[in-house]
Amino acid sequence: MAEVAAWFRGNSDMEKHFASLLRQSIDEVLDGQRTGRFDVKKLDKTEKTYLGTKVEIVARAAFGLGYGRAMDYDIAGHDVDAKFTSERTWTIPKEAMGHLCLVMSANDHRGRFEVGLIRIADNVLRAGYNQDKKRGISAQGRQAIHWLVSNGVLPANVLLSLRDEDRKAIFRASDGYRGGGNGGQLRINELFRRVAFHRTPEGPGGGRMVDRTTTLTVASQQDSPKRVRDARLPQHLGREGIIILGHQGRHPEIARNLGLPLPDKGSWVSARLASAAEGNADPVVQLDGRRYVLARESDVPAPAPAEY
Amino acid sequence: MAEVAAWFRGNSDMEKHFASLLRQSIDEVLDGQRTGRFDVKKLDKTEKTYLGTKVEIVARAAFGLGYGRAMDYDIAGHDVDAKFTSERTWTIPKEAMGHLCLVMSANDHRGRFEVGLIRIADNVLRAGYNQDKKRGISAQGRQAIHWLVSNGVLPANVLLSLRDEDRKAIFRASDGYRGGGNGGQLRINELFRRVAFHRTPEGPGGGRMVDRTTTLTVASQQDSPKRVRDARLPQHLGREGIIILGHQGRHPEIARNLGLPLPDKGSWVSARLASAAEGNADPVVQLDGRRYVLARESDVPAPAPAEY
Repeated sequence: MAEVAAWFRGNSDMEKHFASLLRQSIDEVLDGQRTGRFDVKKLDKTEKTYLGTKVEIVARAAFGLGYGRAMDYDIAGHDVDAKFTSERTWTIPKEAMGHLCLVMSANDHRGRFEVGLIRIADNVLRAGYNQDKKRGISAQGRQAIHWLVSNGVLPANVLLSLRDEDRKAIFRASDGYRGGGNGGQLRINELFRRVAFHRTPEGPGGGRMVDRTTTLTVASQQDSPKRVRDARLPQHLGREGIIILGHQGRHPEIARNLGLPLPDKGSWVSARLASAAEGNADPVVQLDGRRYVLARESDVPAPAPAEY
Repeated sequence: MAEVAAWFRGNSDMEKHFASLLRQSIDEVLDGQRTGRFDVKKLDKTEKTYLGTKVEIVARAAFGLGYGRAMDYDIAGHDVDAKFTSERTWTIPKEAMGHLCLVMSANDHRGRFEVGLIRIADNVLRAGYNQDKKRGISAQGRQAIHWLVSNGVLPANVLLSLRDEDRKAIFRASDGYRGGGNGGQLRINELFRRVAFHRTPEGPGGGRMVDRTTTLTVASQQDSPKRVRDARLPQHLGREGIIILGHQGRHPEIARNLGLPLPDKGSWVSARLASAAEGNADPVVQLDGRRYVLARESDVPAPAPAEY
């Protein structure tokens, strides 16, 4: 166990790798682009079972692991089995008895994950068998886990974390529209409207960074990056003073000047702007020849700059 | 059944849609980019079960189907359940009794698929139950299927269709190489070497169109399009006279002039060229100021044009 643990700890960014491979696995099985789903609770039984296989595959690729002789992986010369759960504990088949297991779990609702190593033995398992003739790791057995990541932060599931009324408003934005790109555009507009940063007494607030998966799930169509670009147009969010910043061109500089989070590639932040009044002490950006600040919630919407 | 069948037949390119959604579903579950797999027989039990769910999801998205009241889909106002098999027959849960089923099957080894509609009743099912308490559609029941596609051609699985020795040569091309982009490059080189068109007595032959999934599976890394571009370089396939044509620039014209299949976006054909000798009556292309024809297998390899 010490050698396998040392191997994992020898990977720079080990925790980040686990966080990202668990996020990726969950997102792929949700398949939000096709299904509009963002909540693992909506997966059917077959999909929940498959999620464990997906995690095994994605972890193998992420860490470049070889196949074991009897178990899933060969790590530092040792056979190691992969086990994933989104429930309370891991269920262990009898073939794993005596072997090391890489146990991984993720709770997308709490935004947390954990990863550890355990050697399977009778005294770490519950007495009872489930219907698949597997035994869960017991509460006492959990004490024997060597933790690699004990309280990891899962990359945010934006849709899951929104207030119910915001989420409903986003998915209902296209009600009554049928076919064409319109429906996806209306939902994307509503998404960036609902997660736009504005000025609060404590500074920029009320907004959320939006990732690519979220736009795919909301747009539910092939060309969701185009839906994001089009949302900036005057006829969509532009007339409400809302800008959407990505990672290219002047966007990072604008985000930095306004005190907003900086979007990576495939991420966006939206913000509602207002013209900077004389003597306004807030951070200002100059766009299209005019000076803008973050709008307060109470500000009457005014058009955003046409170019930025 | 007539109304649901009519709805499907009202979709232009219905057969092409089914062919492509079945190919897509199989390829996604194989996950060749991460696993190097191209054969559904290598899927584990969990993945085979999940493949049915994936087909249900991809078909819903491909045809823009709504959810049924009790069954998977609402089609033309009727509840329709989706059933997929890569085996001989479909297994039907008792909830589907009395309902219409869209039955789909695909055999990637034979390159064929079928799609039909059947109303589930006692007399179309086998007497015995399987361990999941489901019953198979019987040989007699099969007679009751209304076929939408009875002998469809599945888009080719290039790796599955190659001779065993070619396939082995491709995957072994990187043996002994570790890390970096080198391994993937060597396998991609060997792929395009093995599927290159050349001149045969009957015209251009011996080659295969290569699709994107095949390059992802062979390269098993993120940037497989770059591996394809680099394979053209003199230090890789260029010095052997092998060119790789895509869908852009002069490539379609070159393919047409040489009598090769025309690659769509995300597809490639490779071909081995030789300098056109005086009086050669074969189709000729002028590249980089020189005249080339398809090489015969017996021709000594000579460098391909540097630019094309």
